[in-house]
Amino acid sequence: MIKIAILGYGTVGSGVAEVLMQNADSIAQKAGRPIEIARILDIRDFPDDPLWPRFTKNFDDIVNDPEISIVVETMGGLRFAYPFVKACLENGKSVVTSNKELVAAKGDELLEIARSNNLNFLFEASVGGGIPILRPLDQCLAANEVTEVAGILNGTTNFMLTKMIEEDMPFDEALTLAQELGYAERDPSADIDGADACRKTCILASLAFGRHVFPEQVVTEGIRHISLDDVDAASATGGVIKLIGRTRREGEKVYAFVAPTVVPKTSLIADVRDVFNGILVRGNAIGDVVFYGRGAGKLPTASAVVADVIDEVKHLSARKYLYWEKGAEDYVLPQENFETAWMIRLLVDDKDLAALALEALFGNVKFLTRSRAASNELLFITPVLPERETAKRLAELKNYVLVNALRVADF
Amino acid sequence: MIKIAILGYGTVGSGVAEVLMQNADSIAQKAGRPIEIARILDIRDFPDDPLWPRFTKNFDDIVNDPEISIVVETMGGLRFAYPFVKACLENGKSVVTSNKELVAAKGDELLEIARSNNLNFLFEASVGGGIPILRPLDQCLAANEVTEVAGILNGTTNFMLTKMIEEDMPFDEALTLAQELGYAERDPSADIDGADACRKTCILASLAFGRHVFPEQVVTEGIRHISLDDVDAASATGGVIKLIGRTRREGEKVYAFVAPTVVPKTSLIADVRDVFNGILVRGNAIGDVVFYGRGAGKLPTASAVVADVIDEVKHLSARKYLYWEKGAEDYVLPQENFETAWMIRLLVDDKDLAALALEALFGNVKFLTRSRAASNELLFITPVLPERETAKRLAELKNYVLVNALRVADF
Repeated sequence: MIKIAILGYGTVGSGVAEVLMQNADSIAQKAGRPIEIARILDIRDFPDDPLWPRFTKNFDDIVNDPEISIVVETMGGLRFAYPFVKACLENGKSVVTSNKELVAAKGDELLEIARSNNLNFLFEASVGGGIPILRPLDQCLAANEVTEVAGILNGTTNFMLTKMIEEDMPFDEALTLAQELGYAERDPSADIDGADACRKTCILASLAFGRHVFPEQVVTEGIRHISLDDVDAASATGGVIKLIGRTRREGEKVYAFVAPTVVPKTSLIADVRDVFNGILVRGNAIGDVVFYGRGAGKLPTASAVVADVIDEVKHLSARKYLYWEKGAEDYVLPQENFETAWMIRLLVDDKDLAALALEALFGNVKFLTRSRAASNELLFITPVLPERETAKRLAELKNYVLVNALRVADF
Repeated sequence: MIKIAILGYGTVGSGVAEVLMQNADSIAQKAGRPIEIARILDIRDFPDDPLWPRFTKNFDDIVNDPEISIVVETMGGLRFAYPFVKACLENGKSVVTSNKELVAAKGDELLEIARSNNLNFLFEASVGGGIPILRPLDQCLAANEVTEVAGILNGTTNFMLTKMIEEDMPFDEALTLAQELGYAERDPSADIDGADACRKTCILASLAFGRHVFPEQVVTEGIRHISLDDVDAASATGGVIKLIGRTRREGEKVYAFVAPTVVPKTSLIADVRDVFNGILVRGNAIGDVVFYGRGAGKLPTASAVVADVIDEVKHLSARKYLYWEKGAEDYVLPQENFETAWMIRLLVDDKDLAALALEALFGNVKFLTRSRAASNELLFITPVLPERETAKRLAELKNYVLVNALRVADF
């Protein structure tokens, strides 16, 4: 029998309890012994819950209980989660969390405390919800030099973009629908401005390349400025717009950024629709592998948390290796050095003249047309250049309005 | 420093050596110590290979060398692989194999020997090539009661079906092209008659549900009888034909079979094209998760083997849990009990009469039309019934020729 505690009885926390009870037999078999929820911390009352007698409002009841060996943190945010998780690790308890904000901000510090105390700190549910991604990335791909990870990491924005792409639904309407369906919060900015995808990108980059990447280091652009005209333009290029979190190794450093991106329809992740997540891992031996499934939701996320709990039970004495080094200020490369093609829409006075000027500036430019464009729109794809170079050349062009510029993916 | 041996220096075996040498530094870091290829067994000579001095033609040089603690088996087949792997496990060596025939036929026995000797026997590369699937299935989904696993497990047949679906290429032509491209052997029967998919289905079923399933227990149907007319008919139902290996738990027993199946275009695995593999895992908490990537190829497969080697190095003293029970004759349920819908094409004398008779027999039948059909073809989808029931009802119909009947997937 192993005793655990749950911090925070919201959607994920109560889902964890549900999965642990519903699948108790097979979980006990897989973990090697039964798992008991000894304590639950929440400031709210749940008098009708069968576990109510085990609730506490006092964190000390958990951190000072020597019988509790694993703590599940499902509170979210940093304010309480960070000191609580830290205290648990400092007091001999292994921790499982689904809290991406916590791991993205404090992962290296908490992993170091776990390591020095010979404990486990696992967080599979923090990226991709129920999709197993961190463990395969760490273990199964151990034989590969991973060169790049790119993914659709936020289900809410992918749902909205799917509606825009497939049903020609304007952005505002798609957002309202996402809110009505419970996919988006009343304040949707963490989703649509990219903060959620940014945190997950930090975690993927940190694990894939072995050194912490902080949210402040990740250039992050959301989908607020994406219009149906952009969607239509992407379609004319043979692509779809997806909000992509991306990290690429370059020598001893990395690129990491989040941006709406034109993904070719032939890409393995172009077909990731609706609230699904899809993560592409590129390795030098394995080639491209994609992990695909529901990125959020009570039970998928809870099942990932419980899988981590089982793993910690099995590794209570022999610590499992999951670790990355401390971050550094100059570890993430300046985005302006990143080499990419762009899909660009300009409004110009004279299209022929502008086209000639663009060809003179860029050499090889691919011009495209679409039926829904304004008559003075010029739509084109640039060659692959460092971002700084593209910006410099564009600045040399005269008499134009830049409507939008989106990176074109090479995966 | 840990010493390993490789049995068989063919495509996969030489790929393993290549990955181990190419990524030596990062592998040593992940494994905790460097890995040295001490011995390679092959009856052929490779005098130009830098590892040539370590080759042997005598298996005793490996099994009796106390310094070799891990053996990689990449010979394929049963004749030598089975006694060699068994002898290695009985002599204190952990084993990694990519040999699906071996695991499907002898997995339970070898896992038991490994367990009683406190050794590891891992075989991630035997299913899905480089796609991490067995480890996630075993570990990450530990919190789920897995109810079903279904997948496109054979790249060669998926390539051929993709050509038939997308380019209207006849079966024979698609087979010739697959042979020219090196995807299919000169004798293609292991691929197109389903034996390869059958073995992988055995391994997935055994691991997912905890008891060995043998190839002889898996009803296996290949794609030899699939015509462009079937492809067209599937398209009329809104689906595509895929060769699917499938296993479903039903109480304490399981179904397991391989068959060309009509997969709705909305399915998560309908878009798995070309030589790619895609495996869908359905759990009671996680919902559907899909793993997707190249199912074969030298380096993807080798990288999965090397990941297992790294895992064994990390768990040399503390055995990793991967295990299933012995199989039993009555463990796999009779296929005739399996409940499914069918897409059926009949040639009938009188279509109206036949349609009336079918509705009388089945209750609810969905009739479909397609422009390329013969004038006396009746295309329809049956309701979901045990296979025996559908067969019985069809037998009551008079004056028809059954052209083809394909199961329709519910995933």
